[in-house]
Amino acid sequence: MKLNIALLAGDGIGPEVIDQAVKVVNAVANKFNHEVNWTSALTGAAAIDAVGEPYPDETHEVCMAADAVLFGAIGHPRFDNDPKAKVRPEQGLLKMRQKLGLFANVRPTFTFPSLIDNSPLKRERIEGTDLVILRELTGGIYFGERGRKDDGNTAFDTCTYTRAEIQRLAKLGFEMAMSRSKKLCCVDKANVLESSRLWRETVQDMEKDYPEVEVSYEFVDAVAMRLVQWPSSYDVIITENLFGDILTDEASVISGSMGLMPSSSIGLHTSLFEPIHGSYPQAAGKDIANPLATVLSAAMMFEDGFGLKEEAELIRSVVNKSLAEGIVTEDLSGKDKKAYKTSEVGDWLAANI
Amino acid sequence: MKLNIALLAGDGIGPEVIDQAVKVVNAVANKFNHEVNWTSALTGAAAIDAVGEPYPDETHEVCMAADAVLFGAIGHPRFDNDPKAKVRPEQGLLKMRQKLGLFANVRPTFTFPSLIDNSPLKRERIEGTDLVILRELTGGIYFGERGRKDDGNTAFDTCTYTRAEIQRLAKLGFEMAMSRSKKLCCVDKANVLESSRLWRETVQDMEKDYPEVEVSYEFVDAVAMRLVQWPSSYDVIITENLFGDILTDEASVISGSMGLMPSSSIGLHTSLFEPIHGSYPQAAGKDIANPLATVLSAAMMFEDGFGLKEEAELIRSVVNKSLAEGIVTEDLSGKDKKAYKTSEVGDWLAANI
Ligand SMILES: CC(C)[C@H](C(=O)O)[C@@H](O)C(=O)O
Ligand SMILES: CC(C)[C@H](C(=O)O)[C@@H](O)C(=O)O
Repeated sequence: MKLNIALLAGDGIGPEVIDQAVKVVNAVANKFNHEVNWTSALTGAAAIDAVGEPYPDETHEVCMAADAVLFGAIGHPRFDNDPKAKVRPEQGLLKMRQKLGLFANVRPTFTFPSLIDNSPLKRERIEGTDLVILRELTGGIYFGERGRKDDGNTAFDTCTYTRAEIQRLAKLGFEMAMSRSKKLCCVDKANVLESSRLWRETVQDMEKDYPEVEVSYEFVDAVAMRLVQWPSSYDVIITENLFGDILTDEASVISGSMGLMPSSSIGLHTSLFEPIHGSYPQAAGKDIANPLATVLSAAMMFEDGFGLKEEAELIRSVVNKSLAEGIVTEDLSGKDKKAYKTSEVGDWLAANI
Repeated sequence: MKLNIALLAGDGIGPEVIDQAVKVVNAVANKFNHEVNWTSALTGAAAIDAVGEPYPDETHEVCMAADAVLFGAIGHPRFDNDPKAKVRPEQGLLKMRQKLGLFANVRPTFTFPSLIDNSPLKRERIEGTDLVILRELTGGIYFGERGRKDDGNTAFDTCTYTRAEIQRLAKLGFEMAMSRSKKLCCVDKANVLESSRLWRETVQDMEKDYPEVEVSYEFVDAVAMRLVQWPSSYDVIITENLFGDILTDEASVISGSMGLMPSSSIGLHTSLFEPIHGSYPQAAGKDIANPLATVLSAAMMFEDGFGLKEEAELIRSVVNKSLAEGIVTEDLSGKDKKAYKTSEVGDWLAANI
């Protein structure tokens, strides 16, 4: 098969972790006789520095022409504490999501038995946790009208949702629930927000099309609690953009395997695969960042982007082997054991494919 | 001293836990020679049933005439899954917050040594946790314009903040930081929202007036993670209404002492004191709900509402004694020990004042 992959390394540790995923993908392609066509493009602070824009048109064209996008991370601290900065790396991310129509962010949270004790939560609380949050990614307050009034002394943001946007995301949620445990939880703030009431109403209307799926409705504040108390009680969660931002990040730390969690963003034009961690600028250039989340994102790309399940499973089994044999970066090695470099982990994985 | 207290028991377990706080407050008043004037008023589902309104005008007048409001909980499941319900108990809460000008919700999260092992988090993660979240309570998306368009197929909510609203809340935050460890964290989503950029800008401008306070700025998604990972790294947190709703609830479960956490809402006209837990309808009428959060809210009322610190300390020490001696409800008693009834705990506390 011919695999056209756009490669967006981004900022911070992005390029380093992406490099390892490339090694692994090439090794898999080699083994299964696929032909990979990589096209790199600029994004984030790196793109601002080069062309003054975090998601340049050339990058967009590269993504549109690709079968899938493999993404590192973006963001740079030099923009963070400057509320008046005109161009921000994150704007690139938002523009990319919108222009590629990446309407659903799929974020699994699961546990690796060997890492379960890294969790801040007690073992008995997280054992068996295996949930997926489907976050709506191109609507809501992220993309509504915003601005200032009264000489800049009043600021506003608008959260808007249409029934069609909700249906599109919820449909994925129902289908995913059907392929898993048939449990779906819709998270909103319907006791306050009109947009949440439209979410609830829309999902309630769809229930009849999926009579086997048991649907529950919970408020976002309650879910923020229960995710810490009983994460294993959730299976598929669907929610709007901002709630999804908060809850996916919260969920990511409970498993103790944050550095391993992949994600995908399903799009109208193409789909994107990326680790859930950020650009982690403090570690950039040190060859110490954990590449496994990016490598597992590449596995998701094979399975969900190309429909190549065997390839995906092979990557996952090699990752499990690296964990079992302790071929891991310093965040996972523990005090007394040898920590491998980012590049060494990538080499080892590729060699073991 | 004459203490005029409005008593809003509300729904579910509200009346039961409020009863115990009343016993304790009366005992304290008796001991310190204060005269308490209680005035009860309806709110929540109870008020909807009685007069068709969750925060009736008569209730508002009772609150306005009081030196402080002691509040139970509101909410009833019969309204929860009906997105089209016209009157909702929560509307009463919001109306009350707005009409009383309760602009700051103060939510401490701390650990009780004897309860630390109830936390879903590992002991070493939560030991030493002692933080306060100051949530803005009368602005933001809770009170902005909202509605439907396109025959009901599009819904919108607006988040608005003025510089003055932010300053009012942030001032409390800076002052609280000065009286504690001089660390303040402003939580926002300034990489996306204009209202958050106004928050950050406003707080940055205020830094010069509090040169001793070390201020940090963090994104809400990052805080949702770090609260689970390293809760003890926070001291005073300030944030807007919706983020505060989510983060205060998340924070409440990490200490393992959820049933014990009090809160206050500081107002322009009067202040309100309430347990952070909800109306817990499943337990209503069974005399099993834990009254300690409400009793500790009464302690906050003495200290922050009336400036009577000694009285507050006495209540807290009697609560600690009840915990040490195991005079607790079933949620805290553990499997093998006797569980006391709600009313028995209240009687014991009052007798030990
Ligand atoms: C960087 C930021 C704009 C982004 C978001 O809020 O969506 C990030 O937090 C994420 O979740 O991908
Ligand atoms: C009931 C609801 C409207 C309310 C809120 O969101 O403010 C509650 O969750 C709270 O935190 O007091």
